[in-house]
Amino acid sequence: MWQASSWDDPAVGERLAGSHLVICFGGDGTLIRGARLTAPLGVPIVGVNFGKMGFLTEFAPHELAPGLPALLAGDYWLEERLTLSVEHRRDGRLLNTYLAINEAVVARGRVNKLLRLHAWVDRQYMTTYAADGLLVATPTGSTGSNLAAGGPVLPPDMDALVMAPVMPFISFRNALVLASQSRVDVQVVLTPPPPQHEAVLAVDSGTTVNLQDGDRLSFTGGDVRSRFARIRQKHYFHAVLVNKLQRAPIEPPLPPDTPSPSER
Amino acid sequence: MWQASSWDDPAVGERLAGSHLVICFGGDGTLIRGARLTAPLGVPIVGVNFGKMGFLTEFAPHELAPGLPALLAGDYWLEERLTLSVEHRRDGRLLNTYLAINEAVVARGRVNKLLRLHAWVDRQYMTTYAADGLLVATPTGSTGSNLAAGGPVLPPDMDALVMAPVMPFISFRNALVLASQSRVDVQVVLTPPPPQHEAVLAVDSGTTVNLQDGDRLSFTGGDVRSRFARIRQKHYFHAVLVNKLQRAPIEPPLPPDTPSPSER
Amino acid sequence: MWQASSWDDPAVGERLAGSHLVICFGGDGTLIRGARLTAPLGVPIVGVNFGKMGFLTEFAPHELAPGLPALLAGDYWLEERLTLSVEHRRDGRLLNTYLAINEAVVARGRVNKLLRLHAWVDRQYMTTYAADGLLVATPTGSTGSNLAAGGPVLPPDMDALVMAPVMPFISFRNALVLASQSRVDVQVVLTPPPPQHEAVLAVDSGTTVNLQDGDRLSFTGGDVRSRFARIRQKHYFHAVLVNKLQRAPIEPPLPPDTPSPSER
Amino acid sequence: MWQASSWDDPAVGERLAGSHLVICFGGDGTLIRGARLTAPLGVPIVGVNFGKMGFLTEFAPHELAPGLPALLAGDYWLEERLTLSVEHRRDGRLLNTYLAINEAVVARGRVNKLLRLHAWVDRQYMTTYAADGLLVATPTGSTGSNLAAGGPVLPPDMDALVMAPVMPFISFRNALVLASQSRVDVQVVLTPPPPQHEAVLAVDSGTTVNLQDGDRLSFTGGDVRSRFARIRQKHYFHAVLVNKLQRAPIEPPLPPDTPSPSER
Repeated sequence: MWQASSWDDPAVGERLAGSHLVICFGGDGTLIRGARLTAPLGVPIVGVNFGKMGFLTEFAPHELAPGLPALLAGDYWLEERLTLSVEHRRDGRLLNTYLAINEAVVARGRVNKLLRLHAWVDRQYMTTYAADGLLVATPTGSTGSNLAAGGPVLPPDMDALVMAPVMPFISFRNALVLASQSRVDVQVVLTPPPPQHEAVLAVDSGTTVNLQDGDRLSFTGGDVRSRFARIRQKHYFHAVLVNKLQRAPIEPPLPPDTPSPSER
Repeated sequence: MWQASSWDDPAVGERLAGSHLVICFGGDGTLIRGARLTAPLGVPIVGVNFGKMGFLTEFAPHELAPGLPALLAGDYWLEERLTLSVEHRRDGRLLNTYLAINEAVVARGRVNKLLRLHAWVDRQYMTTYAADGLLVATPTGSTGSNLAAGGPVLPPDMDALVMAPVMPFISFRNALVLASQSRVDVQVVLTPPPPQHEAVLAVDSGTTVNLQDGDRLSFTGGDVRSRFARIRQKHYFHAVLVNKLQRAPIEPPLPPDTPSPSER
Repeated sequence: MWQASSWDDPAVGERLAGSHLVICFGGDGTLIRGARLTAPLGVPIVGVNFGKMGFLTEFAPHELAPGLPALLAGDYWLEERLTLSVEHRRDGRLLNTYLAINEAVVARGRVNKLLRLHAWVDRQYMTTYAADGLLVATPTGSTGSNLAAGGPVLPPDMDALVMAPVMPFISFRNALVLASQSRVDVQVVLTPPPPQHEAVLAVDSGTTVNLQDGDRLSFTGGDVRSRFARIRQKHYFHAVLVNKLQRAPIEPPLPPDTPSPSER
Repeated sequence: MWQASSWDDPAVGERLAGSHLVICFGGDGTLIRGARLTAPLGVPIVGVNFGKMGFLTEFAPHELAPGLPALLAGDYWLEERLTLSVEHRRDGRLLNTYLAINEAVVARGRVNKLLRLHAWVDRQYMTTYAADGLLVATPTGSTGSNLAAGGPVLPPDMDALVMAPVMPFISFRNALVLASQSRVDVQVVLTPPPPQHEAVLAVDSGTTVNLQDGDRLSFTGGDVRSRFARIRQKHYFHAVLVNKLQRAPIEPPLPPDTPSPSER
């Protein structure tokens, strides 16, 4: 038994590999960061919700104490979820690879100009998007940015990816569901070059990489699975989906009579 | 070798079961009707496009002659696609079952009033839609009504269904992708009763069934597959998807200077 | 002072014309029906909400008693709202005209087949929609069917109309805002003819008219205004808009553990 | 008669104010930049299309010669279009004001995290968006970013603005049409602060301003109009709208058999 106050704590690097189970206190974002570390090691993770939505977490804070004995006794089931593998190439050279738990987005940066994005599916040229971006999400990420982009919700255990354009302008609008072994290739057309125009690769809302004109990104299902420990019933997902989304205010609205900024 | 001029021809009923391959001349709609007959028999079908889109057909009319030898020599591959099974219950009694190649829709009839539709996924209550309708589509049907409803496109060989609300009013808008063995149950709330309000079940745009308040529909993957004979390369789908959809005018637009009806 | 228990009551026809103010007890639908009768007469109407949303009504039931003295003293302001005028032509002949408070929709009937709808704006041919329907709404109707179709919300006092396609299939998707004096002409292409295919004109969810192939509908701002009496502050609309829409459950959801129909 | 090769040319500043008409060679973007300079001076501008879409330009290159005599003879009509005025405040202090011809967007920067945006309309608190951004567009800008955001198209001469969320996440999705004298106030909630999270104000795709947590933006119709000289017929807009959008490929697609980046 060990503990660390953040994923950057050196203890995490030392102790994670041999652990049987990781209990993560925080919101969905913190849990996603943890899953990116535990997934390659095959270590299960379980979340205690101290954030807003709690889509991925297993326990509300007050539920941990009653649930802990079952957890420690190994009395849980493992929900294995598909991850996403991303390759970033420039001039034919592999610059980097990324593992995403939720999604990866090729998106415009600060400048409000459309990107042109050539897209291939399974090495067949499909179309060229004119859009603010293009995202590829796992089932886990299907309730995140993909939801805002109008994409569909995938069940947690489905072996499939979803690809959706962000703010498509006179381009194909509907999302595509793809088999996990399918491969999406995207080539960025960035004219004029930065800083008149910017494009980035964003992985799980945490990693942001600057792209250049001609950069190529490849997306396919990851080799590893994220493993979430669960003690709830197996068919929980659709029972909580809409309720969570409708009830959970991302930001509590202001009181109705809050004066506008210009009056203060 | 036999031929019939329509799917209603008695010859179809007599000869279909023992056939090795059915060649269908017509558009996607005619081919869908044929697939509903051939799928339960396991007989492959191939379409020659005399319609508009030709999403499912294998040949343009002029391509049949060059392709025919390969077809007759059995030199084709079989694309097996998931079908949809629909059960219609009233007062706990099973009224009828339907096989859909594309989709089934629970929708309002002629009266422009919202339906209330209680929805369960895998026997868990999910939400109640206030909408013009709710559709469940196969991968084959994902490029049909589902596309118009904003749902995602599924690859032809995926073992999954998609469910999408039609004109949702302050309800959950995003489509859901579901495993083929998942089960969707829908209960129709129809107040006031017909004719002040109407609801129908529409299967593959061809069958229309009147519904009553309290009627229950269940949707799950079908036991049989539709089998389309193909001679083209296997990874054809995404290569033609966007191009077909952008190029194919469902209805050729009128000449730009067509006078408005009120001037004629 | 007179009263009637429904808009069909003969008293309504006899007494409405000379009235100074009509108080309507019911939901938004009942108020819309009343407004269609009072608008041509220039008689103000005020709604007491016994329905669900209460977008148009001025009072919750318990607010009527405190508000009544102001109403009877004439201590209210009039919110005048644009209406919609609809003409239905067949073979060049005017069949009927309709006044809509909310919207008029040209839509498919019971059969789940796309309609082809040629559309002109101000006598210029614009495009041909392949869709389930096409609606034209007033600012009052912009929070109704138009909202579900993805159209924008117009402020109550704006002198403009909005036109939006319903379930467009590979057609122009965005709504159009039009000046109140603009004119939209729509010609229905209905092949095959009924009953294989059906089209209807639906006015304010209450009137449903069967259409035939070639029928023409014209939409423009109405000559009369609907006049709603209000005692609340003038800039109320945007303050309640989102709150009403998010809070008001069109249909209360079922309890989370409601068994699915197949289990009962 | 004078000429300059770019809007940055000093000649522009010297000669613009006294000019009767400016002829702009370039695409819609160049014309928008010019309109931002000519609008405050009341000088009409006319565009010759050397770009892609040509939504705003009056002439294709080959049409200029035949049209020039009419232009020089003053034989044109003026299309006056509403502009947008933007104020940027920090800690109650006015930092800057901007004039937009198309639109202004409050948007996330490079980091893929939702913004929280409190929104007031006419000093009434309306809602808090969780979204990638929020845009306010003029009728001119309604066919730009607003179109991609799902907002409606407004006629060029309408005295109204449109506000639309960009990638709203469980927030109100529909656009709002507002009177030109209406005022939208937006307050940015940016936690964590930059560089973990970024927000920008983008005006007409050309000006990008970094925002801080608590910054306030106000949007209302501008005092000046953009004035486009036209020789075409007055009711041109809806006749070309859909045709332009469907025909004009923002980016010509690649040939169908273009190999994917990973194969080169």
